[in-house]
Amino acid sequence: MIHEALRLFGNRRSANTYKVELLLSQLGLEFEYVDIDLGPNSKSQTPEYRRINPLGQIPSLGISDERYITQSAAILCYLAQGSRFLPSSAYDQALVMQWLFFEQYEIEPNVGWARWICHIAKSADRMTSELERYRERGSRALAILDEKLARSSFVVGNQYSIADASLYAYTHLATEGGFALGHLQNLCSWFKRIEGLPGYLRMSGAT
Amino acid sequence: MIHEALRLFGNRRSANTYKVELLLSQLGLEFEYVDIDLGPNSKSQTPEYRRINPLGQIPSLGISDERYITQSAAILCYLAQGSRFLPSSAYDQALVMQWLFFEQYEIEPNVGWARWICHIAKSADRMTSELERYRERGSRALAILDEKLARSSFVVGNQYSIADASLYAYTHLATEGGFALGHLQNLCSWFKRIEGLPGYLRMSGAT
Repeated sequence: MIHEALRLFGNRRSANTYKVELLLSQLGLEFEYVDIDLGPNSKSQTPEYRRINPLGQIPSLGISDERYITQSAAILCYLAQGSRFLPSSAYDQALVMQWLFFEQYEIEPNVGWARWICHIAKSADRMTSELERYRERGSRALAILDEKLARSSFVVGNQYSIADASLYAYTHLATEGGFALGHLQNLCSWFKRIEGLPGYLRMSGAT
Repeated sequence: MIHEALRLFGNRRSANTYKVELLLSQLGLEFEYVDIDLGPNSKSQTPEYRRINPLGQIPSLGISDERYITQSAAILCYLAQGSRFLPSSAYDQALVMQWLFFEQYEIEPNVGWARWICHIAKSADRMTSELERYRERGSRALAILDEKLARSSFVVGNQYSIADASLYAYTHLATEGGFALGHLQNLCSWFKRIEGLPGYLRMSGAT
C-alpha cells in the first residue's frame, strides 16, 4: 500500500501516540508530525481539530486532506494491512484484534490513567480512590499479559505484531503509574525482545 | 468461511453478548449457546472458564475444542470477515475499526456501566459518583454518534456494518442507564433502520 502525505496528529507524552510512531518507524514510513497540546484551552479543543477528532483526542492520522482515522488501535490496523505486523490467518488476526481490544479496555484505561495521574498531571494526592481502582484493575491485566508471555515469545504466537506494539506502549511505562514489574519476569523479557527489533524507536516523551 | 461447531459463551443480560448473537443471526450461522452466569462465585470464575477467558468475562467464542476468541468486538471482526458486514476498502475498514474502538472505549464503559448500575445491579443509590461520571462521558459519546448519523444512514457511509451492530447493542438500551434519548433524533431513526434489517434479532435479556 502506498501512503502519501501521512500526517500524525499527536502528543509526545501520550503512549497512544507513541504506538503509532513506533509502527511507522518499523514500517519505514515517512510522515509529518503535528503536535497537539492537550487540556481545556489547547489546540485539541479547537473547531479545526474537532472536525478531525470530535472528542479532541489524540492521535489522529490524516491520509489525505479529507480522510482521517482516529483511535490509535484502528490506525495501527490500517497501517499494518498487508505487512508482516498483521498475521494472514483469520484466527491469528482475530487474536491480534482480541489483544488490541484488551489493551484499550484493560491496560490503557488503568495502567495508562494511573501513569497520567502520577506522572503527567501529578495529582495523585487528590485522586486516591481513582488511583486505587486503576492500580487494582491494571495489576490484574498486567498479570494476565505476563502469564500469556510465559507461553510464547510474543502476544500472538511467536511473531511480533501490532498487538505487541499496542501493549508495549503503556506497559513499558507502568512504573510511572506506580506499578511494580519486578515479579513479572515474562513481561520484562518481552520488553527487551521488542527493544531489540529492527526499527525500534524509544518514546521521546518518556522520562 | 465455513464455521463448524461454533460455541458462544455468554450471558443474555449482557449487550456485549447480544452483539455477537445479532451478527450470528444476520449471518444465518448456527451455534451452541453456553450460558455463563456472572458474579464472584459463578461459572464465569471457574478454572474451566478462566482457561478460555482469563478475566472471566463474556462473551467468548469457541471455534474448535482448542481455539477461542475473547473480546466481543474481536469476535465480530472474525465472524464478519469476507461478509457484507465488513467493507472491503482499506479506508472504510479502518473507519469500522475506529468505531468499534470508540464503542469499547466511550460507549460500553459509560452507557453500558450506567445501565449495569441502574438496571441490573440496581445499586444506583450507593454509586452516585461513578454514575455521574458515566452519565457525563456517556452523554458526550451519544451526542457524537448522533451527530455522525446526521450525515449518513449508518456509521460508516450508507452501508450497515459490524460497527453499527456493536454500537447499537448498548445505545438502544441507554434509557435503562438513565440517559434521555428524545433529543437525539438521528440516533432514534438509526435504531429503527437497524430493527428493520433482515436477520434482526431482539435482545432476549432486555426488559
